[in-house]
Amino acid sequence: MTATADALETYLDANHDRRLASYEAFLRIPSVSALPENAADCRRAAEFLADELRTMGVEHVEVAETGGHPLVYGDWLHAEGAPTILVYGHYDVQPPDPIEEWEKAPFEPLIRDGRMLARGAADDKAQVHMHLRAAEAILATRGRLPVNLKFLFEGEEEGTSVNLDRWLEEHRDRLAADLAVISDTGFFEGNLPAITLGLRGITYFQVDVLGTAVDLHSGVYGGAVQNPGNALAHIIAALKSADGRILVPGFYDDVVPLSDRDRHALAALPFDEEAFRKELGVPALVGESGYSALERRGARPTLDVNGIWGGFQGEGAKTIIPASAHAKISCRLVVNQEPDKIYELVREHILRAAPEGCRVEVTNLGGGLPSLTPMDHPATQAAVRALEATFGQRPVFIREGGSIPVCASFASILGLPVVLLGFANPDCNAHAPNESMILANYETGIRTIVRYWDELAAIPEALRA
Amino acid sequence: MTATADALETYLDANHDRRLASYEAFLRIPSVSALPENAADCRRAAEFLADELRTMGVEHVEVAETGGHPLVYGDWLHAEGAPTILVYGHYDVQPPDPIEEWEKAPFEPLIRDGRMLARGAADDKAQVHMHLRAAEAILATRGRLPVNLKFLFEGEEEGTSVNLDRWLEEHRDRLAADLAVISDTGFFEGNLPAITLGLRGITYFQVDVLGTAVDLHSGVYGGAVQNPGNALAHIIAALKSADGRILVPGFYDDVVPLSDRDRHALAALPFDEEAFRKELGVPALVGESGYSALERRGARPTLDVNGIWGGFQGEGAKTIIPASAHAKISCRLVVNQEPDKIYELVREHILRAAPEGCRVEVTNLGGGLPSLTPMDHPATQAAVRALEATFGQRPVFIREGGSIPVCASFASILGLPVVLLGFANPDCNAHAPNESMILANYETGIRTIVRYWDELAAIPEALRA
Repeated sequence: MTATADALETYLDANHDRRLASYEAFLRIPSVSALPENAADCRRAAEFLADELRTMGVEHVEVAETGGHPLVYGDWLHAEGAPTILVYGHYDVQPPDPIEEWEKAPFEPLIRDGRMLARGAADDKAQVHMHLRAAEAILATRGRLPVNLKFLFEGEEEGTSVNLDRWLEEHRDRLAADLAVISDTGFFEGNLPAITLGLRGITYFQVDVLGTAVDLHSGVYGGAVQNPGNALAHIIAALKSADGRILVPGFYDDVVPLSDRDRHALAALPFDEEAFRKELGVPALVGESGYSALERRGARPTLDVNGIWGGFQGEGAKTIIPASAHAKISCRLVVNQEPDKIYELVREHILRAAPEGCRVEVTNLGGGLPSLTPMDHPATQAAVRALEATFGQRPVFIREGGSIPVCASFASILGLPVVLLGFANPDCNAHAPNESMILANYETGIRTIVRYWDELAAIPEALRA
Repeated sequence: MTATADALETYLDANHDRRLASYEAFLRIPSVSALPENAADCRRAAEFLADELRTMGVEHVEVAETGGHPLVYGDWLHAEGAPTILVYGHYDVQPPDPIEEWEKAPFEPLIRDGRMLARGAADDKAQVHMHLRAAEAILATRGRLPVNLKFLFEGEEEGTSVNLDRWLEEHRDRLAADLAVISDTGFFEGNLPAITLGLRGITYFQVDVLGTAVDLHSGVYGGAVQNPGNALAHIIAALKSADGRILVPGFYDDVVPLSDRDRHALAALPFDEEAFRKELGVPALVGESGYSALERRGARPTLDVNGIWGGFQGEGAKTIIPASAHAKISCRLVVNQEPDKIYELVREHILRAAPEGCRVEVTNLGGGLPSLTPMDHPATQAAVRALEATFGQRPVFIREGGSIPVCASFASILGLPVVLLGFANPDCNAHAPNESMILANYETGIRTIVRYWDELAAIPEALRA
């Protein structure tokens, strides 16, 4: 270990408790971007990050308006000749419901068994916080960073980043860089260090089936009117077969088929489908025939009900025909599917499948493009070295089933290669109750980020090639 | 008008305000039988009725335990040689939700445009209250009733009367009578006085589709696991075609086909399908082909979703695969379908239709037999005369799509003919927000009940034939 590395370790050790307290303070802000009542909290989370950046010596820090929740920008650009990296994360979190399934209140962090439990503990507050702590430690111990960093933290990622693209377009010059690094992904099953090469895109929409102005007595009217609940079931059943094939005409037209190399890489991963099934506690894994579970999860498109509701949900028996029934549905997309095109195909199919006797409305709630990053890019290979040096294990390459719309935007709007350097444990319960981050991933990951900047500082020409 | 009738009118006129105040006091008790938190209110409603009966001079009044919500019994048996009538109504009401759609709080009665608005205003508190006021007026002005009356008011009708049958069996001797009169039905479209001959039965059940213990991230898991929301849609779609034909094998086997006489009687009713459609505000009436809307509503069986829920119901986009999805579903039944047999057929079909990858549970929430009352029974004809004399219009004969399980129980357990003498206006919004009772129906109906007892007192032999 060099003297500098030694100083950095000493600094990180000395600041352990302060670091966790700051991480917890960040988690206590209920920055749920989907809920209007949490708008002020989202702004509070942005201010929290801006304060942190200013305190450690990052410059040009601003909480920037986007029309929605603000984003946070700040940079440190004194590493002359060194590469410039755009670092991205998001401070917004998913809604915490069902609240009653949390062991503790979702915004009251709890440390137990080496994990931090809270909404956002992994997705994505931990990872944003790790970048803050890595830069802080380097600046505190070396007085300067090995690379130029531009931090960009947004507050609408969980809502498909609706206002980000416009902001990126308006600030294209200011965001010029050699590389974008997104820390919003995770390790592989068994907590194996991983680099994510592929991300799925998404299109998210709502279906409203509207019958009468008020609920009807099911005895007096039943048999003579269309029931919005039954009609919605027919619509959803027409979208995807019970065994996972999407029935929307044209849906698969733009899907780039998996190459043999892709399939071999996925098949080589240490993944046990039966153990995965058991861990989920389901009687069987179900999905598109002809594909492995890993292929279905990361490399094939999906169509899933995210929520469904209408009529009486209480105890006992209420005999009504619901006035309306509703579903939130989303499709995960793979290259080269386009969210707006897929939305239109699905919408047309829904309107075709809608039974007579109700009005059906479909609303687009947003979308994001899928992406794929080259395995042999020098920045990807530098990330491999940084992970191996700190976690003591060579990372695997995976495809993530989730969607980070900004990933495609960095490529298409800013022309940047993107490395997905994420640290969440695969059992982190992102988007679910009892979300958690393994603290060893958090701590070691901070060292990985430091190491990654050093690795990138060593290859400025390769990054510009 | 006779001197006695004159005295009765004078009494009813003088007590108008007190009567409405008492009706409102009854409506203020939130006796929702389906909600455990309203159990004490149900008991309070029973005590209210018992107090009323005692005050007017009814004897043997008791609030009787059933294992569920109590029922109220009381009798007046001093009309020697006259017929004995068992009068039935229920004090429990449907849950008031969606609360936000009410013009005023559902348990704060509001009189407007000649209507009483409140949950239970029509179904069935108005009708119970009319019986109290009719008997009170006769006793106050004549000192005695023309017939023997046994009052039976229950508190579990909206929950399919689960504990009533046992109580009827245990008190068969005490309930001996010549006739049962149930006041829990309504007038025909246009507020036309009507006598209901047929009632549908019901079987009510819940379907629970269970996936994982917690909601899953739809990106990380989507494609590899069955989605309970999609699976539930497949199950519901398999139960009934989009145009209203029930697809459960054997479902129609025991249905007694409509006779030509039945069809002619229904076709002769002044019913305008297009006006009915417009009033409901739906683009089309939808139901089993080959049947009119009136036949579909009253004389054919149904299968309707009463409520459906699972996953995210908030604003915006939450990207999860719901841990579970649920539906409450009920079938209205016609003679000779049996609720338990139909439940088993539907349950088997649901389990057959259930997609792989989830657990599916079906729970029976109760049922009731369908019933048909003869048009030419002397008690039915006496009701025709009483309605015509008071409302000035000859009543029509209809079939009600709703279910009053006790109707079949009175026939099967007590061996009694049943007359359904109901006064609710057809636009009363029973089971829906802004339930209302036209006060003219309430007032004139009290006179009809008085007249009915007098009509029945005149034909004791015909009732015993």
